[in-house]
Amino acid sequence: MSSMIGNHIKIAIFGQSHAPAIGVTIDGLPAGFRIDSDELAAFLARRAPGQAFSTKRREPDQPEFLCGVVDGVTCGAPLTAIIRNTNTRSRDYANLITHPRPGHADYTAQVKYGGAQDVAGGGHFSGRLTAPLCIAGGICLQLLAHFGVRIAAHLVQVGTAVDRGFDPMGESEETLDALRNAPFPTISPEAAAQMQAQIEEARRSLDSVGGIVECIAQGVPAGWGDPMFDGLENRIARVVFGIPAVKGLEFGSGFAGSAVTGSRNNDPYYMDGETVRTRSNAHGGILGGISSGMPVVFRAAFKPTSSIARVQQTVDLTTGQNAELSVHGRHDPCVAVRAVPCVEAAAAIALADAAMDSRADRMNQLDGIE
Amino acid sequence: MSSMIGNHIKIAIFGQSHAPAIGVTIDGLPAGFRIDSDELAAFLARRAPGQAFSTKRREPDQPEFLCGVVDGVTCGAPLTAIIRNTNTRSRDYANLITHPRPGHADYTAQVKYGGAQDVAGGGHFSGRLTAPLCIAGGICLQLLAHFGVRIAAHLVQVGTAVDRGFDPMGESEETLDALRNAPFPTISPEAAAQMQAQIEEARRSLDSVGGIVECIAQGVPAGWGDPMFDGLENRIARVVFGIPAVKGLEFGSGFAGSAVTGSRNNDPYYMDGETVRTRSNAHGGILGGISSGMPVVFRAAFKPTSSIARVQQTVDLTTGQNAELSVHGRHDPCVAVRAVPCVEAAAAIALADAAMDSRADRMNQLDGIE
Amino acid sequence: MSSMIGNHIKIAIFGQSHAPAIGVTIDGLPAGFRIDSDELAAFLARRAPGQAFSTKRREPDQPEFLCGVVDGVTCGAPLTAIIRNTNTRSRDYANLITHPRPGHADYTAQVKYGGAQDVAGGGHFSGRLTAPLCIAGGICLQLLAHFGVRIAAHLVQVGTAVDRGFDPMGESEETLDALRNAPFPTISPEAAAQMQAQIEEARRSLDSVGGIVECIAQGVPAGWGDPMFDGLENRIARVVFGIPAVKGLEFGSGFAGSAVTGSRNNDPYYMDGETVRTRSNAHGGILGGISSGMPVVFRAAFKPTSSIARVQQTVDLTTGQNAELSVHGRHDPCVAVRAVPCVEAAAAIALADAAMDSRADRMNQLDGIE
Amino acid sequence: MSSMIGNHIKIAIFGQSHAPAIGVTIDGLPAGFRIDSDELAAFLARRAPGQAFSTKRREPDQPEFLCGVVDGVTCGAPLTAIIRNTNTRSRDYANLITHPRPGHADYTAQVKYGGAQDVAGGGHFSGRLTAPLCIAGGICLQLLAHFGVRIAAHLVQVGTAVDRGFDPMGESEETLDALRNAPFPTISPEAAAQMQAQIEEARRSLDSVGGIVECIAQGVPAGWGDPMFDGLENRIARVVFGIPAVKGLEFGSGFAGSAVTGSRNNDPYYMDGETVRTRSNAHGGILGGISSGMPVVFRAAFKPTSSIARVQQTVDLTTGQNAELSVHGRHDPCVAVRAVPCVEAAAAIALADAAMDSRADRMNQLDGIE
Repeated sequence: MSSMIGNHIKIAIFGQSHAPAIGVTIDGLPAGFRIDSDELAAFLARRAPGQAFSTKRREPDQPEFLCGVVDGVTCGAPLTAIIRNTNTRSRDYANLITHPRPGHADYTAQVKYGGAQDVAGGGHFSGRLTAPLCIAGGICLQLLAHFGVRIAAHLVQVGTAVDRGFDPMGESEETLDALRNAPFPTISPEAAAQMQAQIEEARRSLDSVGGIVECIAQGVPAGWGDPMFDGLENRIARVVFGIPAVKGLEFGSGFAGSAVTGSRNNDPYYMDGETVRTRSNAHGGILGGISSGMPVVFRAAFKPTSSIARVQQTVDLTTGQNAELSVHGRHDPCVAVRAVPCVEAAAAIALADAAMDSRADRMNQLDGIE
Repeated sequence: MSSMIGNHIKIAIFGQSHAPAIGVTIDGLPAGFRIDSDELAAFLARRAPGQAFSTKRREPDQPEFLCGVVDGVTCGAPLTAIIRNTNTRSRDYANLITHPRPGHADYTAQVKYGGAQDVAGGGHFSGRLTAPLCIAGGICLQLLAHFGVRIAAHLVQVGTAVDRGFDPMGESEETLDALRNAPFPTISPEAAAQMQAQIEEARRSLDSVGGIVECIAQGVPAGWGDPMFDGLENRIARVVFGIPAVKGLEFGSGFAGSAVTGSRNNDPYYMDGETVRTRSNAHGGILGGISSGMPVVFRAAFKPTSSIARVQQTVDLTTGQNAELSVHGRHDPCVAVRAVPCVEAAAAIALADAAMDSRADRMNQLDGIE
Repeated sequence: MSSMIGNHIKIAIFGQSHAPAIGVTIDGLPAGFRIDSDELAAFLARRAPGQAFSTKRREPDQPEFLCGVVDGVTCGAPLTAIIRNTNTRSRDYANLITHPRPGHADYTAQVKYGGAQDVAGGGHFSGRLTAPLCIAGGICLQLLAHFGVRIAAHLVQVGTAVDRGFDPMGESEETLDALRNAPFPTISPEAAAQMQAQIEEARRSLDSVGGIVECIAQGVPAGWGDPMFDGLENRIARVVFGIPAVKGLEFGSGFAGSAVTGSRNNDPYYMDGETVRTRSNAHGGILGGISSGMPVVFRAAFKPTSSIARVQQTVDLTTGQNAELSVHGRHDPCVAVRAVPCVEAAAAIALADAAMDSRADRMNQLDGIE
Repeated sequence: MSSMIGNHIKIAIFGQSHAPAIGVTIDGLPAGFRIDSDELAAFLARRAPGQAFSTKRREPDQPEFLCGVVDGVTCGAPLTAIIRNTNTRSRDYANLITHPRPGHADYTAQVKYGGAQDVAGGGHFSGRLTAPLCIAGGICLQLLAHFGVRIAAHLVQVGTAVDRGFDPMGESEETLDALRNAPFPTISPEAAAQMQAQIEEARRSLDSVGGIVECIAQGVPAGWGDPMFDGLENRIARVVFGIPAVKGLEFGSGFAGSAVTGSRNNDPYYMDGETVRTRSNAHGGILGGISSGMPVVFRAAFKPTSSIARVQQTVDLTTGQNAELSVHGRHDPCVAVRAVPCVEAAAAIALADAAMDSRADRMNQLDGIE
């Protein structure tokens, strides 16, 4: 009732930050699908801590596959992968049971679970749970590659520093590859420098800063997604809001599109050879919840890291008195940086599930595959 | 695989714009709950067309209850209500099969359903399907009232005209009631006039304009919602993106919060008597997917109506040639206006389901109700 | 939380026996699929009352399609069909609120719904709700015909009278067609006569009698169904136990197979040309939850109709005293008779959903249909 | 799409017999619930191999809790427990890829997964997967104890040897406790001896034998379960048919009830002090899918173990020729013996989920727990 999602490809994420392990089960992957473990490791490394501009903890985060693959190939049974938690420092979090961190789930979890919640390291609400999300997403990325879909994301904003946005008509493979290999995920090096400066400034001030991640999925064929509650926007939203700290999401022209006229926001159709395309992409590749064949483009807003070292006002839940708190432990001053692959993972999870679902929707496909 | 949603309270929406009827089934409502039909009718009237600044069609949209209620009280069985479609003009839409409207689902539905889709009036993708959404939402609003929850929404932006935002710390009942009874849903009369001018200008130009709806849910107790994929943000997102034309969604400080520091965006806790509250509400009442006890506040971005009378470029799907199109029929120049109660309905559906789900989450509640 | 089912093809059944209408929504049918309404009507006629050996009420039970079909062809949107309730006699049931019928859901619904349940005609628990089940099942039967699947059922036992069982290796089309057109659904005319005699005897005695329905699905290709909780047995069970009065279900050799040895119960494989087949079919066409290519065979046990005219002991829930009851109204003395098409419908619903699900399970199918 | 189940308490089972591990994730357990690990270990020991009359393999099967519990108490996050596979002998199974075992899932999995399935030890279809089912079930049993529910099962038949059935009106705690501690799970010692003789005879003959497990759940309050597809029968069926080798299921008088009259099969109500009870229990504690307050009683039919050492006819899938096979490896000659706690586990999983769901169904419960 919370940490499971999906129609055909069902994903169950488990673990707390300081429990023995975290992990994920993926049920419904096609059988006979080879998972490239090096590619997966490279993907996971992009969200791993220990890089510049993120927390100092080192987490090797090598997934151990418990089942579902035989010699690297999916066998049809549910796939489970776990990551052991080794580098934990529970004493850092001892007083968070009584003194909830502003902006964090400490207090709301306390109310929901009546004091039984695992507060250490943020428990199940920790950003660390994005590691199993990325395992699932990394596998879905590889599955989507068989459909010709490629996904990339970058930091389009950190604090007040901005990168240029993706060209919604599509980016070159070189640009996307460069992003995947960049030490800091922006298209423009100048933007990277400015963002890093703002992050460094936040760190020095014992503070944090927010950011916006932009994601593009190219090669999504027209016709994926369902009306109403299972549209691609709904599906992507349901996964993306599962990443801690996300507070906003927009597709295509998004909030800016609300300020303009229909004649400007509508994307005219034209024939590109035998393919129907649009001359612009304010619709972000999705109309009526269904992909149009144009790139799927969306942006996710991340709030500033809530755990900051600066003294903050809180309450003491044991005494019912106002209190002060300064959070110890190691926390990224900008969660959006490491969230870039997480957003790609979320997009991949949503799109892979929609791809599987879409296989049965047309009667004239009935003859093909029985 | 699309038009059903919910964990405990399951909702199935059906119908096409020009089919014999549209409707909704709600399974999982508590039994013994009296539905106030006058209150429901008043709620539905707020989204009905035929008002100033919306389309000229008249739809009485009286729901007929087929089952699930006995003498106005829920009996525990699924509740189904339908609305007959009477005032339809299918000939207006004849050419949309071959000439898809820019910005609309015509083309994507064509690809998905292989030409079998019901194009008349937008079929299942029509804004008319928000009527059954509002039936479900209106009932959930009444259910939530038993929990002390009150929901209201307003137009915070149309084109470039803006209303003042809700006070995220809470609005007075008077303000919320005034909004529910307002001929045009803004807090400030000046904003109403400016928005109406922009809508009228769009209509005159055979064009349309977008808008942003802001919603507040007051009285939500701390502890509703689940981690990860069933958080309140995920749940609200999955319903809100089911409203046609929504392209963005943000909670609390949302996208603006990404530009600031944690010390500014974190909401300090304090004791208000015996109640834990926050001194600001950038978190929009939700932390870790779980309600904090502060008002739940979010904004949904609506694109401009895609059906505009102005000549637009499209393609002829039968010949594979570029073509032109001007959309006839009656369309609101700003869908956001009538979407205001739809957003309230979406919030109510998501929150009512979360409320039901939350009843079993704590062991110390086990003794209460067996 | 009850009357909805399905993974890809989702079915929501609604209505009470004496509500304005009963009906069903089917979401996830392929688009472009023509529904033969005459064939559907003929199927529904088989469960309609007013026949010999069933209740005297007449229910035309013509489904009205509210949406989801255009000119008889599915359009991809949810399909909803309703049946109006006209011939109701609520006064027959007035005292059942206080005096629950033994063997019926009156008392358990009373406890669950706290007195708000709709007792008239059995409410949502009425056998009448099998009409929308048969609408859904009849449509799924037609969909399955595109896959080459044919389903039939018969009464294999009524009281102590027995029909010969289906040949688990497969029956001829003639036998199955004869069953579909038979005035009384047995293979052997002698069995029909004996069963009718037992039913008539029960009616004369103001009593009722139970029966067993056997069902066969031929042409199911090997490979449908999923392990563990979504195996074909699980899926069929979940629908079949949704038919009122079902208290048992067995596949293949079933309970009898528990008394024998593996060497006898195992079905040897052999090559029939290029097809793998088994020389016997104790496994009922399902191994590990997945179809083997042999006929799917199962039997469902129906208890005797609980509503009997004979005086029975009950309690008065208002006074908390023991009481007596004799049920008026018109009730079939053997519900199993009209349940025969219901069992076919249940099998069709489960198999059609499994068919849709099975389309994405193998990677080497990935190239076929994008 | 297979190995996940549940509405409020969601269970995901993973693993193959010879994969690194098997396990289970349980999402939705109430927080603050202490799990008695000794009691759980004792429960798991009952299905462990290495006992008399079962396979000779030793599997300690100690579950390792990866997350979801803190100091033995549930914390609200998903609980995951795994069991490492250590004592595997994959070479025993090498030829099963080409030569499918009669009566086993080898062939159907081959078709479904296109040759990618994990055949070693039966893969995901192995009876070994009942270990994680029993972990989940053992925890649900402890949860149900808080509701006053106690569950027990026994072998009511092996081959042609029979035990006396449970008294459907209820058994003493002593009888149930004795069963839980019995070296061989029958009520009558004579039945145990006869069954053991038949099992020993099957073993000597390089054969196997089937059996029937009967289960009783006492203390289930009236009002649990939902109409139609989420009735207690449907819920129990969907889990029970997830246990390998189950081919039949009946509740209360079941198949035998189909042969009698309503006046005999209906259970008369009477007042037992202030409690409504029935004078007999042919309904097996369930009416309309909802518990009546009487014991829930059902029987599950297990086919004989399909893996037998005797030479059997099969096919060679590589050559498409008929072939012979004799299965090596260690297999219980009667899977029903160790299935006894598995059936209890299945009942507990279904009932615990229904218990959680039932908490929100009545409006007059709304005031209690917000």
